[in-house]
Amino acid sequence: MPDNVTATFAHFVATHPLGELPATVRHDSKRAILNLFGSGYGGCRDDAIAAMLAVTGPLSGPRQARVIGRSERLDMLSAAWINAAIANVLDFDDTHLATVIHPTSPIAPALLALAEVRAAEGRPVRGIDLMHAFALGVEVTCRVGNAISPGHYNRGWHITGTCGVLGAAAAVSRLLGLDAERTGWALANAATQAGGLVETLGHHAKSLNPANAARGGLLAALLAEKGLSGPARPIEGMRGFLAVMADKVEPARLTDGLGETWELSLNALKPYPGGVVLHPVIDACLEIRARAGASADMIERIAVRGNPLLKARADRKVSTGREAQVCLSHTVAVAFLRGRAGPAEYTDACVNDAVVRALGDRTVMIVDEGVPVEAAGVEVTMRDGSKLSAYVPHARGSLGRPMTDGEVEAKLRDLAAYSAVAIDPAALIDALWSLDTSPDASALMRLASEQA
Amino acid sequence: MPDNVTATFAHFVATHPLGELPATVRHDSKRAILNLFGSGYGGCRDDAIAAMLAVTGPLSGPRQARVIGRSERLDMLSAAWINAAIANVLDFDDTHLATVIHPTSPIAPALLALAEVRAAEGRPVRGIDLMHAFALGVEVTCRVGNAISPGHYNRGWHITGTCGVLGAAAAVSRLLGLDAERTGWALANAATQAGGLVETLGHHAKSLNPANAARGGLLAALLAEKGLSGPARPIEGMRGFLAVMADKVEPARLTDGLGETWELSLNALKPYPGGVVLHPVIDACLEIRARAGASADMIERIAVRGNPLLKARADRKVSTGREAQVCLSHTVAVAFLRGRAGPAEYTDACVNDAVVRALGDRTVMIVDEGVPVEAAGVEVTMRDGSKLSAYVPHARGSLGRPMTDGEVEAKLRDLAAYSAVAIDPAALIDALWSLDTSPDASALMRLASEQA
Repeated sequence: MPDNVTATFAHFVATHPLGELPATVRHDSKRAILNLFGSGYGGCRDDAIAAMLAVTGPLSGPRQARVIGRSERLDMLSAAWINAAIANVLDFDDTHLATVIHPTSPIAPALLALAEVRAAEGRPVRGIDLMHAFALGVEVTCRVGNAISPGHYNRGWHITGTCGVLGAAAAVSRLLGLDAERTGWALANAATQAGGLVETLGHHAKSLNPANAARGGLLAALLAEKGLSGPARPIEGMRGFLAVMADKVEPARLTDGLGETWELSLNALKPYPGGVVLHPVIDACLEIRARAGASADMIERIAVRGNPLLKARADRKVSTGREAQVCLSHTVAVAFLRGRAGPAEYTDACVNDAVVRALGDRTVMIVDEGVPVEAAGVEVTMRDGSKLSAYVPHARGSLGRPMTDGEVEAKLRDLAAYSAVAIDPAALIDALWSLDTSPDASALMRLASEQA
Repeated sequence: MPDNVTATFAHFVATHPLGELPATVRHDSKRAILNLFGSGYGGCRDDAIAAMLAVTGPLSGPRQARVIGRSERLDMLSAAWINAAIANVLDFDDTHLATVIHPTSPIAPALLALAEVRAAEGRPVRGIDLMHAFALGVEVTCRVGNAISPGHYNRGWHITGTCGVLGAAAAVSRLLGLDAERTGWALANAATQAGGLVETLGHHAKSLNPANAARGGLLAALLAEKGLSGPARPIEGMRGFLAVMADKVEPARLTDGLGETWELSLNALKPYPGGVVLHPVIDACLEIRARAGASADMIERIAVRGNPLLKARADRKVSTGREAQVCLSHTVAVAFLRGRAGPAEYTDACVNDAVVRALGDRTVMIVDEGVPVEAAGVEVTMRDGSKLSAYVPHARGSLGRPMTDGEVEAKLRDLAAYSAVAIDPAALIDALWSLDTSPDASALMRLASEQA
């Protein structure tokens, strides 16, 4: 283990020249933040969010920062906390596929909350500086994740929480203009707050993991700014983050090529809230449906051919909307019946709809090791004996077939409509695409939230 | 691993009858909380505390809860956070010796902050109920700690943080009157927030660990009250607290004999802020000093005979007050020169005092495997050739020779004077000894803090 991991990250974050941020990475930053708001609209009315706000709303400090898709105002720590939860609660936010980190939810909300405070103080944060800080934070989070994957997650660490807090602290340090020494302290203050258990997935408690990562990272950097110092090697030290939280580390993945490659380029946006393994199946179902104009009651049987992982993860009976996000038969049924698989198709009511259940019961899974995990085939047998089939080698939203900018926009509009959020999607989308020339990044939150 | 660990703890916490809390445990609760205030007076002016308050003070919500030894008012989450840090920052708080957990700092501040809110709402918490909740929380924290010690700490987990958050959540759940199901949710909400790295010890960042445990535990229970639910087995599940955070677990230590034995009975109070291994050495030095009335300039040489652990931990050169807390030669020197080893003897200035250094340089350590770790011998050779010696089998404050109630009171008075805290120690001490008959436990915080 090199003994300068923290110092290298801190120097990189404190000194990386804006001019060296590639144009593609700038664009990826905008897409990631646009997708944050979209997934946030999907999540902003969730039960878990309501419970979290019921506690922290009355305990909030100065009402200085806004909440995605809602009208509450909170202090910046509380806003970072709830916005991260809102963006992640449906698991509809982005995914750094190599690590399954959702990088934007813990990082961007911390920056956006700080940007609102800075604007109120008359020293707004430029859009391009927020994008830059964001990309640097994602880099730290995902590189640490790369070095400890897949063992760290497999052991049971909710990696979005554990690695997210480091990137949030790094990103905020950059926006605060901290020098490398204080950025290192911020990383120490963050590392000692890292946590989050996979055991909570599928439960309300899961939302505490991205929320605490965002809040903890913002807090870590604010504390470092005020002089709260830490050990020199919080990440690589003998009792530091890596030694304590990982059984196996690939040190080269941490800092080799830093500034030359960008993890944001490996970040995927999801068109559907369900598990990623189901995405090529949905695409195949929708393709058949569109081609045939077939009504569901003409379907005799649906056979899905897929990788063993698809069976292991998703071939199961479920009774709640949250569970249905990783249920093959339910997902196939709604794709054919409703022509979509959005949040409205993953409610408890939809899962218990008799028509949906009946079609789901006519779905079978055929395991085929020759089908890669990012692919799937679907064959429909109609009541008249005719057959329709489709094979999808790369799902929409995968790195091989990324969502188009237009699709990311449409996702935001759809989810704003789904949650009946009183905002203007067009204005927010415009502000996002021109973020690099904005003199005040906090304008995003004014557009993304409801009026108080 | 039994599959009912969380359920057993939750049922115990939610239903344990007050009448079954032994009188000795009640008394231990009072001593622990009295000691919390005393150690808090020692720590309330620390640099780390100042930096933490500089950030969270302006971001605090309603000014509903008090701060030990200070005049600030904060929302209850922030008050729990800072009071835990204040009580622990000097490592002068209590120690559950089997696990090296400092149990009171993460647990009592969460309860005291809630008690202030409840009093303001016109439904005060009785002192006896706070003591009971406290004892139940300590039980959960220390039992989980017992089951994963010493491996968990040795790997690098700051066990006061990791296990502390579970007990804080349990204790607050009891005070809120949550049923067993919601207490289980609180434990889930706490488990997924558990964290804290040993790498931070000796640095400001360390204070985040007890602070986050107290705040996180209070938050976990408040969220459970509002319906934020969690998995059924957050502690014992396949990706739960124990599986993720411990390499080896002794399941029997978790819940066997629950309600029959009390971990508070195994909790030690420290008469000196330095490392526990140094305590018998200090006692021996003070005994010789008192007996001889010897002035330090008559001393030729000081030989300390002790366990190998004493040498490994404390036989080293240091340059700061914080490091000196585990430095044998410095500690011996101040014991002889000043007749005490309190916080004033562990400042940077004292470490760099030429007279202290000179006497420290005349100290030698003799390793003797026959001396138990809780014991030490000291032999002083005077310039005239005469020798004085003392052997201490059990240090003051150890389980074999616990601090008397009077000594705990004196510690509080001394530390209040040391920090020049504008409070009335006698009134606070009286309130503590009569806590079991108090109709309003929040009276403690009114007595323990300065006027706003």
